[in-house]
Amino acid sequence: MTTATPAEVASARGVDAPTVAVVGAGQLARMMAQAAIGLGVPVRLVTDEPYASAAQVVRDPVVADYRDLSVLRRAVQGCDVITFDHEHVPTEHLRALVAAGHVCRPSADALRHAQDKAVMRRRLDELGLPSPRHRMVEDVAAVKAFAAAGGGYPVVLKATRGGYDGRGVWTVGSDSDAEPAFAAGAPVLAEERVDFVRELAALVARSPSGQIAAYPVVESVQRDGICVEVITPAPGLKPELAVEAQQLAMRIAAELDVVGVLAVELFETRDGGVLVNELAMRPHNTGHWSIDGAVTSQFENHLRAVLDLPLGDPTARSRWTVMVNVLGGSVGSLYDGYPHVLARDPQVRVHLYGKAVRPGRKVGHVTAYGDDLDDVLERARHAAAWFTGDNDRFSSNDMPQMAGT
Amino acid sequence: MTTATPAEVASARGVDAPTVAVVGAGQLARMMAQAAIGLGVPVRLVTDEPYASAAQVVRDPVVADYRDLSVLRRAVQGCDVITFDHEHVPTEHLRALVAAGHVCRPSADALRHAQDKAVMRRRLDELGLPSPRHRMVEDVAAVKAFAAAGGGYPVVLKATRGGYDGRGVWTVGSDSDAEPAFAAGAPVLAEERVDFVRELAALVARSPSGQIAAYPVVESVQRDGICVEVITPAPGLKPELAVEAQQLAMRIAAELDVVGVLAVELFETRDGGVLVNELAMRPHNTGHWSIDGAVTSQFENHLRAVLDLPLGDPTARSRWTVMVNVLGGSVGSLYDGYPHVLARDPQVRVHLYGKAVRPGRKVGHVTAYGDDLDDVLERARHAAAWFTGDNDRFSSNDMPQMAGT
Repeated sequence: MTTATPAEVASARGVDAPTVAVVGAGQLARMMAQAAIGLGVPVRLVTDEPYASAAQVVRDPVVADYRDLSVLRRAVQGCDVITFDHEHVPTEHLRALVAAGHVCRPSADALRHAQDKAVMRRRLDELGLPSPRHRMVEDVAAVKAFAAAGGGYPVVLKATRGGYDGRGVWTVGSDSDAEPAFAAGAPVLAEERVDFVRELAALVARSPSGQIAAYPVVESVQRDGICVEVITPAPGLKPELAVEAQQLAMRIAAELDVVGVLAVELFETRDGGVLVNELAMRPHNTGHWSIDGAVTSQFENHLRAVLDLPLGDPTARSRWTVMVNVLGGSVGSLYDGYPHVLARDPQVRVHLYGKAVRPGRKVGHVTAYGDDLDDVLERARHAAAWFTGDNDRFSSNDMPQMAGT
Repeated sequence: MTTATPAEVASARGVDAPTVAVVGAGQLARMMAQAAIGLGVPVRLVTDEPYASAAQVVRDPVVADYRDLSVLRRAVQGCDVITFDHEHVPTEHLRALVAAGHVCRPSADALRHAQDKAVMRRRLDELGLPSPRHRMVEDVAAVKAFAAAGGGYPVVLKATRGGYDGRGVWTVGSDSDAEPAFAAGAPVLAEERVDFVRELAALVARSPSGQIAAYPVVESVQRDGICVEVITPAPGLKPELAVEAQQLAMRIAAELDVVGVLAVELFETRDGGVLVNELAMRPHNTGHWSIDGAVTSQFENHLRAVLDLPLGDPTARSRWTVMVNVLGGSVGSLYDGYPHVLARDPQVRVHLYGKAVRPGRKVGHVTAYGDDLDDVLERARHAAAWFTGDNDRFSSNDMPQMAGT
């Protein structure tokens, strides 16, 4: 490969901005790269697929397997800081890179809490922070005992590592239901199924110096374990609970020494509190609204944090901002959706990720904002549903507009 | 060069979005590429410098000389539409590409009016649209006659082709002053020097179907022929004059069949009218505010226009938006300005172009927005001046903040 190193590129450019290595090339890296253009910061993308979402939009992506340390070492050579679009880089690799003088943000010590749910739960317990009732279980008998000790079934079982978008999570209603969770032969985390009011997310960006920018607390709507819709701010959320959720996220970010974005997924409980569901240490789906909806997007603030630059204002620019994911559906061409979607609503913001459509796959998102939540919700949902081909729920009143494109 | 063609890339990606070829790789192409990421539209960048501003931020830029038709042909092969970040592509090349089945937007017929000031003036005259008094002049004697026919000197002489940022423009106060303008041996355009109140710009995006999005009319402040500051909307502009300016831009876009962004630079005259100064057929410096300040940026709307997609809302999101250019000054490192600029104002938006600092060169811009124009102006000016090293005009009151970073 004859690609120039970042240092050579910078030299050729006569520009002194540091280079950020981003490991992973999904849509999060893609939107980081978009933010990096504005900041004037070069990105060195490390991707295992030559035309992954982010690899399409950066100069000279390095196609390399991050699981192979020697390959990873070469890929990040000459970069000033290393960050990630996922939590799957082995911590031992990160420690080896740090030992060799690299800067990894977030650090391996912080990332462990996003990689391993058992580690995360233990740490939150030590800090006295609120989790659902939980316990590590080795077999079905232990699940049975866990259920019996609480309100019985259903119980949620989670693989401690590697799950995302609902994978590695089983909601089990009986002893026999629990068996598949042990198919891999590893202990799993058992958690009470929380009878929550709704799901919230508190997202913060934290810099090495400890500065924190806290985004408004959002409501996140999940379907089949996948985030489908995010409303900013969470409608009707009591101000004191919003502050509590932000403080919880800030406390976790500080205690775990997170650098970059930390997303804390929360359950709002019926007794008016919150419980921590999951942690993510990277820009997060519940923060996509911030590209069009906040003064500073989560992607820019992630970069500013890992570069140890002062953080930008995370305030929302409109009263309501709604983000709806475009999930792969019955329509193979996303581009064919543009004439209708853009003509129907000149204010809607569309982000497509350059990914081929597969059922349920996150292939884009749309954002709408404004003063009237019902209107904003309808606009964002309509646009996303049109791309997906999921238009059944729109009334026949809408048909003339559809026919018009 | 083993680079994949756009068609191969699209096929590898399983995505059906059309590919936009962008000829030219300055900051305008860079910001187009940034907008294209959101739209999910691949960009094929044709650059004559391997690490030009835009070439740093796209996959597989094609390093090719657009002045060589055979090279240009190869560079744009497989692209669905061709557009530009400057007006210097020879129209005969564009006609050859169209003859070969390519789509160029804007077209050669439209671009001629932005390439050649004589063609532009003639067309505006035919349309009955307001220009400064003007005449083609072949020699100093003709300049003298032109001056005598009006109010005498000073007179403005303009090379009909190739000028930008004040180059190719001479303000002459006497016969002998006029000589340098004829050094190239070509006729030049003589124009009265307009005693204007201020400079305005009316920017529109137009699609092939004739849809037009008109941005708010801005005030543009020039220094030494270079745009330094843009205020949106132009303060105190009479609503009827704002409408007149927008209608003028829309009329020109329609009459010249412009596709993409058209910027009409205007003089506001002392009698309450406007005169057309210059035309540009591409995203324009007076529209950079729209990235952070409008619902849809000029860069996204340029792409939507050339792709024949419905245009986005050009409305400003705040009462006031101010863009100040970062011009190369006494500070070699732009990145070193970040700690102060970003800490002082968490809401300011910074865009650096990946260009080495040279005196007077446009190397970035900053944008601020809000309800109080004085505050917004101060914030944007301070940030830009800090990057430039031009801080003399800030009072000593500001020093503690400076010292704090």
